[in-house]
Formats: sequence, structure tokens, C-alpha cells
Amino acid sequence: MTSNTNKTITAPMGFRAGCASCGLKAGNALDIAVLTCDHPAATAGVFTTNKVFAAPVALCRERLVGGRAQALVVNAGNANACTGPAGLRDAKTMTSRLARSLNLQPQNVLVASTGIIGHRLPMTKIRAGIDAAVDNLSSSARAGRNFARAIMTTDRSAKMAFQQIKIGRSLVRIAGVAKGAGMIAPNMATMLCFITTDAAISLPLLSCLLKRSVDTSFNTITVDNHMSTNDTAIVMASGLAANTTLKTTASAAKFAKALDEVCLDLALQMVSDGEGATKRMDVRVRGARSLADARTAAFAIANSPLVKCALFGGDPNWGRIVYAVGSCGVDCNQGRIDCKIGPIFVFRKGKPVAADTRRLAKIMAAKIVEFTVDLHMGRSQFTCYGCDLTYDYVRINAEYHT
Amino acid sequence: MTSNTNKTITAPMGFRAGCASCGLKAGNALDIAVLTCDHPAATAGVFTTNKVFAAPVALCRERLVGGRAQALVVNAGNANACTGPAGLRDAKTMTSRLARSLNLQPQNVLVASTGIIGHRLPMTKIRAGIDAAVDNLSSSARAGRNFARAIMTTDRSAKMAFQQIKIGRSLVRIAGVAKGAGMIAPNMATMLCFITTDAAISLPLLSCLLKRSVDTSFNTITVDNHMSTNDTAIVMASGLAANTTLKTTASAAKFAKALDEVCLDLALQMVSDGEGATKRMDVRVRGARSLADARTAAFAIANSPLVKCALFGGDPNWGRIVYAVGSCGVDCNQGRIDCKIGPIFVFRKGKPVAADTRRLAKIMAAKIVEFTVDLHMGRSQFTCYGCDLTYDYVRINAEYHT
Repeated sequence: MTSNTNKTITAPMGFRAGCASCGLKAGNALDIAVLTCDHPAATAGVFTTNKVFAAPVALCRERLVGGRAQALVVNAGNANACTGPAGLRDAKTMTSRLARSLNLQPQNVLVASTGIIGHRLPMTKIRAGIDAAVDNLSSSARAGRNFARAIMTTDRSAKMAFQQIKIGRSLVRIAGVAKGAGMIAPNMATMLCFITTDAAISLPLLSCLLKRSVDTSFNTITVDNHMSTNDTAIVMASGLAANTTLKTTASAAKFAKALDEVCLDLALQMVSDGEGATKRMDVRVRGARSLADARTAAFAIANSPLVKCALFGGDPNWGRIVYAVGSCGVDCNQGRIDCKIGPIFVFRKGKPVAADTRRLAKIMAAKIVEFTVDLHMGRSQFTCYGCDLTYDYVRINAEYHT
Repeated sequence: MTSNTNKTITAPMGFRAGCASCGLKAGNALDIAVLTCDHPAATAGVFTTNKVFAAPVALCRERLVGGRAQALVVNAGNANACTGPAGLRDAKTMTSRLARSLNLQPQNVLVASTGIIGHRLPMTKIRAGIDAAVDNLSSSARAGRNFARAIMTTDRSAKMAFQQIKIGRSLVRIAGVAKGAGMIAPNMATMLCFITTDAAISLPLLSCLLKRSVDTSFNTITVDNHMSTNDTAIVMASGLAANTTLKTTASAAKFAKALDEVCLDLALQMVSDGEGATKRMDVRVRGARSLADARTAAFAIANSPLVKCALFGGDPNWGRIVYAVGSCGVDCNQGRIDCKIGPIFVFRKGKPVAADTRRLAKIMAAKIVEFTVDLHMGRSQFTCYGCDLTYDYVRINAEYHT
């Protein structure tokens, strides 16, 4: 009965999670987490494009060449980034410690870290934490939820998503967990995402679908080349659901759609939990000459500190939106631009529209506000998601001390 | 005697300024200003690169093709941007009103506006304001200072700069006035700058030197293609100083240096007066493969909300600096990067340096903090100037209502 209500990363067959508190976070909070699979799982990963990347990212990239992994360990509180060769040795030590207690090859163990940059990991604490987490390994829903809590840093809530689909006669489960609260603007904080599934799927297909899902989810809330030093999304497929290996176009599409939904669900949880955020904005740019233009314009709006402050203040300040579009370098002509807040036109063909200010104020007061810009230059479109810039954002990031 | 102590835009020979309050700002504050020259002045301008540009910008671009102007009118409180063809008519009306009262051709009159976007100008008030400003025209220092005050929007202080040089036996004066307080990140608020000089200088040279000076001053605090809809820098040269026309390399270089100094002085006043700013950062990037890389990396640091919050909080958080460099797409190798806060190395060849934390805290507490990054990839360098991100920035921009 329990297994039916488990919608965490331990729900797909073959996975167990274990957590511990090893002193990286204050107040005995969970800060180290282990995920294992009963068998070597087909495993794919997508990592930060930052040229300054953390030691665990370097190690995972190397180990995922073979596309198999059986366990991973994650710590929160210290990113093991900008730590030089010593940091790489520490990351390796984490995997070999876990490999030894699980009787695996270190080659099949992955690692991720998140937290402060530029400090060595306290390896004595970490080693003890790994051992304690292994002692707690369980396939319970509670173990899955604890994993989600253990990897949090400035997150206000644990982020989980779940989808279940039928492939032939088999139930296939996809579950994800993520952390990341600094998506207020690109460049912010580390995003970590771990997805488990019991689908039987080939590595090349899994790898391709993960990239695609990341593009339409996490990459719509953060700009590719502005990722943090540690950004990581890993999917492990145990193959234990009795589906015949996903190879028809229809079954692959079904799986792809569910994976997309898990990723977008997690991404939207992240943006809503942006540091200090109180509101989300969904920015739709249409009629762009190219996808690149649509994307650039959408992010220019979502990243504009002025638009973000107007969202916080509930002000339908469309001038700041149009202004951001004009300055971001995309092909446009101010005499053709339309702008809508919610369903209401506020600017049309380059001219302000006298809109119902009471209706606008109501729309701007909602938790989720939609801004739509039509450039009328072509047929490309892109949607991205952002949040407001608040006093709390400043407090969190100014009062944080290294 | 008075003329010796006048260091405002009325100090160069031939210029007069007049201001008035016409009700665009609250509390009878000065909000409209006129500048005139006794003769048609050689005049050059640099304008926003935003594809959404305001009506006055469109008009000035057109009128400056001939390179001569004899008067300009500026209003604060309303940007006359995103106002369509009606806005262009209003801008023309402003210049024809001023031309008529001064008995000039409208073709020789320029206009600039700053303030809220998307609202028509209240033309009855504006017309009355122009007439009143003309009535007050004077070459006094007080008139020059009032001009600086009248064009302010969210600025906390009026911004003026002055240089005097000797060309041959003549004294040549260069004076500038500027407004702009939203330089906290690109895309922010309008920058207006008006420079007067009595140098006798050819239009092509004046135009070339203005572009150069703007590049090394205003463009080091704001990114070219992220300017506002109204950004304008105009220089008018009356030619009334008795210098033989600037044409030797040496005299042109002397003038150029003084013009650079006036512009950089104004630019640094702007960044220090960034909306809500309490501190300035000077970001020096060295050892880049190209000037473009040096520039991109410097702005990536200065525009990072995390670096800006760390500056506000006084935290020597070099991780955020290195992180911004790695993610901005420039050619770099994390194993070679050096980073200094003030004169202290905090990161060297990709490894953290154990630095004196008390000295670092003291450096971070200063009003101006210098961050230096050496990429060790080449020989290009670039310096830009930024400011911190504070509670007041959020207050100013979230509580502002359209």
C-alpha cells in the first residue's frame, strides 16, 4: 500500500535513499544524502556551462562517459568549487568512501555539492556523514522526502515532482527532486536535480530526452551560459519496470512528455522559490524573427531589475517591458510592438493603449503575472519564467557572509 | 570676477541658461531648462542605441546631421517615449516654441526629455514653462546650477564638471552637466549630458572626440546596447575662445583629455548616485584575449546582483566574482585566474588564498572598492564602474507607480 502513495525519488523500482546530518548546516539539519540503485542504472547528466566549474562536476562528466552509475552522494553547505586540485581529490574521496561501504566500483559513483564557494570540504565530517547516510538507506517515501530536504540550501521548501505512465502493460514511474532558490536572475545559485525512473530505456535515448527536457524547463528559468559552477541534472534509469525497452516512437514520446512535465514542475517550483521572491512572471515573446531573438527578448524582460521591481510593487509598468525589448539587440521595430499584461493590451503597434487601470492593478496583484510581447517580425516564440526583486532578495544576499 | 568662479555650463563664453517650474515635478521644483548659444554652435551628439527610442532622440538625430545648433530645451518628469507619432509632434512643438521666442529656426533647436515612459507631455504646461525659462536666461553660475537641478529625476544631487585648458594663449573652458541615477545595472534610467565649450573646433573633430570620450566614460558605466530610450549626450562649441581653431595634434590631444575628464567626472558622479547606491566598485579586468572579452567580463562582474549585494553587505565574496567571469562566455581557464580585492590576492591561479580577513573587511567597508581579475589569457584590459544593490534600490523601483 505504501508504495502506491510514494511519489518521491524512491518510488521508481530499485532506488533507495539515505540522509544524515554531518554538521555542514546549522542546527543538525540534514545536509548529506545518498541515492542508490539495486543495479547499475543507465545514467545521463547535464552540467553547468560555466567555465569555472566545481570539482564534483568535473568528476561526474568524466564518469558519465560510460553512461552507467549505481549511486550518488550529495552534500549541501559547501560547493567544493574554486578549490583547485585538492577539491578534486576531496570529491573523489567522497565517491570512494561511498563505493567502499556499498561494495561498488568508485567509477560507478557520482557526486554533487552545493553551498559556499572557495572553501575546502570538512572531510572528516563528510566521511562520517556518508557512513551515517548509508546506514539509513531505505525505499520509503520518508527517505525520498528527506533526500529532498537534505540537498536544500536557501530553498524555502523541498522540491519534488512525480509522473506515472503506462507503457504497454507496465507502469513506469519518473520522480524528481531539485534544489535551487537563486533563480531570480541568471548567475545566481546552484541548481541540482536528480531524477529516478524504472523505465527500461537505452542510454542514448535517455541522454537525448534529458537534454531536451532540461532545455524546455530549467533552461527557461536560467540562461544557458550563465549557470553556476555546480549546476547538475542527473537521471538514473533502473530498467526494473517490466516495460519492453522504450523503442517505439509512441512509447518514447509518452516517456518524453512525462519527463518534460517532471522537469518543468521542478523548474517552476524553483522560480517561485527564487530568493526573496513573492511572485512569478511568465514572459511570452511572439512574432520574433528567430528563436534566438524570442529567447533573448524574453530573458531581457524577465531579468530586468526594473521589471522585477515593478512586479514586486504590483505596478503595470509596461514602459519597462518595451524598453527591455528595445535594448536587448533583437530585430524589432518600435512601431510594430504589442504588449499585453495578462489578457489586456497596454501597448499596440507602438502606441500606448488606455487600459482599465483597476483591472490591470488586479492582474498585477496576482501570484503569477503573464507578460506577452508580440514583435510582429516573424513566427518564432519563446516563454520564460522569472520572479520579482524584493527587499528579501537584498537581505539574503547582502547579509550572507563568507 | 564672477566669471572666474563660474564652473557651470554657462562658464564657456557665449552660453546662457534659463529654468522654470511648469508642474511636471511636485512641489514647484524646477523641471524645464533652456540652454542657448549667442551664435550657431558646432554641435555633436551621441544617442541611445535602444531600438525603442524616444521622440526627442529621433528629432535630435535628424537635426544634428548639419552639425549646428543654437539652443536646446530639456524637460524632466516625462520622457516622451513610446508615445507614437503624437509624441514626435510634441517634441517638434517644444523646439518651435523655443525657436519662436528666441527668433531662431526650429532646425537649430534641440530637445531632450526624461521621466516616465508612455505618457503624452502636458503641452500647455510645457509651453508656459519654455516661455518662463526663456525669461530667466542668464550667463550666471546660478543659472548653470539651476539647469543641473532642473534636469534631475531620481538623482540625489546635481552633477556638474568643469575643465579649463590653455590652447596657445587662449583659455578654453569645457563644462558639463548630467543627470542619471539609475546606472545600477544596464537598462536602467535615462542619462542626459550636455557639454558646453568655447573652443573653436571643427565639427568632425568635435564629433569624433565626443564619441571617444563617451566610450571611456558613460559607456564604462552602462553597456552600449542596453541604453535607455532617451540617453543623450550633446556637446556645443561656441568657438568664442580666441584659440586658433584646434587643428594641431597637440592642441586636439589637450582638448580631448579635458573632454575625457569632464565626461568621466560626470559618469562617476552618476554611478555613485546610482538608485539606492551606497558604494562604488571599480572593476578592472586584465590579461583578456581581446578588448571585447575584457569588457564582457568586467560588466559581468559589475552587473552581477550577487556581487552587488556582497558589496552592499561588505562581504569579500570573491567566489561570486570568479563565478560571474566563468559564466559570461569569455575565453578563460579556471586554473589561471587571479582575483584581487583592493591590493590583496584572494584567488590565485585557480586556488583560494588565505587572506587577512580583517584587512579585507576594512577594504570592503570603504566607499569605493576595487576588484581586479587577471585572466592570464592575453594582454587586453578594461575597467568599468558599478555600484551596490540595496534595499533602497528595491524601494525606489518597486514603490514607483505609473
